[in-house]
Amino acid sequence: MFEARLHQSSFLLKILEAIKELLNEATFQCTQNGIQLQAMDTSHVSLISLFLSQGGFDNYKCDRNISLGINLSSMLKIMKCAGSDDILTIKNHEEPDSITFIFESQSYDKVSNYQLRLMNLEHEHLDIPETDYACVMKMPSSEFARIFKMLLQFGETVEISCSKEGVKFSTSGDLGSANIKLAPNNTTDSDKAVFIEIQEPVVATFAIRYLTLFAKATPLALRVQLSLMPDSPLLVEYQIGDKGHLKYYLAPKVDD
Amino acid sequence: MFEARLHQSSFLLKILEAIKELLNEATFQCTQNGIQLQAMDTSHVSLISLFLSQGGFDNYKCDRNISLGINLSSMLKIMKCAGSDDILTIKNHEEPDSITFIFESQSYDKVSNYQLRLMNLEHEHLDIPETDYACVMKMPSSEFARIFKMLLQFGETVEISCSKEGVKFSTSGDLGSANIKLAPNNTTDSDKAVFIEIQEPVVATFAIRYLTLFAKATPLALRVQLSLMPDSPLLVEYQIGDKGHLKYYLAPKVDD
Amino acid sequence: MFEARLHQSSFLLKILEAIKELLNEATFQCTQNGIQLQAMDTSHVSLISLFLSQGGFDNYKCDRNISLGINLSSMLKIMKCAGSDDILTIKNHEEPDSITFIFESQSYDKVSNYQLRLMNLEHEHLDIPETDYACVMKMPSSEFARIFKMLLQFGETVEISCSKEGVKFSTSGDLGSANIKLAPNNTTDSDKAVFIEIQEPVVATFAIRYLTLFAKATPLALRVQLSLMPDSPLLVEYQIGDKGHLKYYLAPKVDD
Repeated sequence: MFEARLHQSSFLLKILEAIKELLNEATFQCTQNGIQLQAMDTSHVSLISLFLSQGGFDNYKCDRNISLGINLSSMLKIMKCAGSDDILTIKNHEEPDSITFIFESQSYDKVSNYQLRLMNLEHEHLDIPETDYACVMKMPSSEFARIFKMLLQFGETVEISCSKEGVKFSTSGDLGSANIKLAPNNTTDSDKAVFIEIQEPVVATFAIRYLTLFAKATPLALRVQLSLMPDSPLLVEYQIGDKGHLKYYLAPKVDD
Repeated sequence: MFEARLHQSSFLLKILEAIKELLNEATFQCTQNGIQLQAMDTSHVSLISLFLSQGGFDNYKCDRNISLGINLSSMLKIMKCAGSDDILTIKNHEEPDSITFIFESQSYDKVSNYQLRLMNLEHEHLDIPETDYACVMKMPSSEFARIFKMLLQFGETVEISCSKEGVKFSTSGDLGSANIKLAPNNTTDSDKAVFIEIQEPVVATFAIRYLTLFAKATPLALRVQLSLMPDSPLLVEYQIGDKGHLKYYLAPKVDD
Repeated sequence: MFEARLHQSSFLLKILEAIKELLNEATFQCTQNGIQLQAMDTSHVSLISLFLSQGGFDNYKCDRNISLGINLSSMLKIMKCAGSDDILTIKNHEEPDSITFIFESQSYDKVSNYQLRLMNLEHEHLDIPETDYACVMKMPSSEFARIFKMLLQFGETVEISCSKEGVKFSTSGDLGSANIKLAPNNTTDSDKAVFIEIQEPVVATFAIRYLTLFAKATPLALRVQLSLMPDSPLLVEYQIGDKGHLKYYLAPKVDD
């Protein structure tokens, strides 16, 4: 029996918007601790790892571990039906083959009930090793989104060079070349602060397109954290308030 | 000789937006009482009935009954030319084969004059019998629009069940099923009130697509009235202030 | 060596938006007085003449005349990368085959550097004779844009008749006909004023499509000036504050 209740469900919609271009369907693993989703994107280049803590829900019951295979665009359609002041309950008990989304309006005596068929998805367990990263950067998520939106105009791959002086994003293509340098700052405006922690400088190359897809998570968090390690995947991490996190891992491009 | 004058013409634009997806062209029947339009939609499933009272115009002259056959998308193009503070005069006299729209700007010394060729349309008179409906519901027009926009995501036909307890809209399709229950409420916020008058419960099935097309009339009125009768068309009715009304009739779906 | 610096670069973006549908690429001629662009549109019907005075930049250095051949859609992509509070520097010195756009953020310690390859464009010098126009009209640029957006719904060519009483724009097509009359006014609201100076009445015909393309310059200036002369090109002129001007010349349509 699984049941979760939320007064403000808009962050669930934002999560779906943040992963729908990377995944068509996904298995949500529900345990008493919360809900987890781990999956490679459809082209097996990046890995998405979502965790929603049970404490982030207004009410959460899960008496045994269950896996819910869900078509994400169908779930997105349902979540878009939510009114801004609706209370959402997600249920899987009476009918084990389906999941029910119930929206209760607070301004009308209205209850909307959407039942979605579950999918049987193959689910591989992904082991993500804890990594001690050489460079960790924190910056405004909107700035991260802007930088890669710009770079996408110029090229397909970005070279990220991170050192004590700052981080440089470089690309080039038919149009010409683009270089964006961002230095750590000591602004008192904590939303605009850029922090860089360095153990050793790192230079690595990544596909810009995936970074712009990760940036779809911008509405979830004001800040984003990037972690780099030579010859290792880049970790892009959004904290969803005290509700959980959304992490993206992207394999580096290796020169032939 | 027909001439009508309006200081605020934006509601005419809203009316055209509310019928343009159902009708390509239409005959406006002008009498000394006002302007009437009655027509089956292009696929002959629903009926549109518009009445604009002469009292809703700032000036209205019609000395004999005339029928004006008009291409609605052309008229829409003209109405979109109106500035927000323009005074509109609609005329048909000197040139009987055309209708003239004159916009006088109140902020410039500007007069815009659009002459549209009239069409010779066959016009069948439609007799709409007065019906004593078994269920009459009043609700916010925005809520009506939202409900059918959601249901359209899930299915093609909606079952409407109306009883003393409230009204239930149900559909299902490939995705799963959707049920929206709306109960009468005693809110003091009259814009949000839901009223249901019942003589006997009614259950009937309709094509969702047409209901979403009727909902294009939402900008015309804060409230909408739905009237149901077993084995009879559903009546969806928008009052356009004290200027008139726009009614849609939709035949029920019959099980094979 | 060419270098120009701007605290507010948004007007450059507006200029590119105002010419991009008329020109694919263009030669910017830089002298110590400022930057000039003169070109026939791609279909050789209209002429665009842009001048940006060196005084309109916060810093301007040009020690010898140079011609910069630039693909406008590439430059537009770069200009769209500018943040609203970025300081822009445009440079051509170290690498003569390319032009560099540097955006320095005022809210971050961020420098974005875009290098664009220059093009070798054939450049014909265009002699625009000074003309003593018979009719000169000044009106709000937004009104000019609105009028031709409307007329484009009705026809392909507009007849402009200008006399002491005012200016009349007329067109007709399949739909019917449209006439817009604008008279000089003595409004105290100088932004809405319409002025007409007449030496002799002029009637001339032009392609509406080009006039709607010229109206893309509306965001550059609150006012537009139209100058007419029998059998001569129409001049449509936008003053870009004290920074320069953007002029369009359009050849009249001649009856066969």
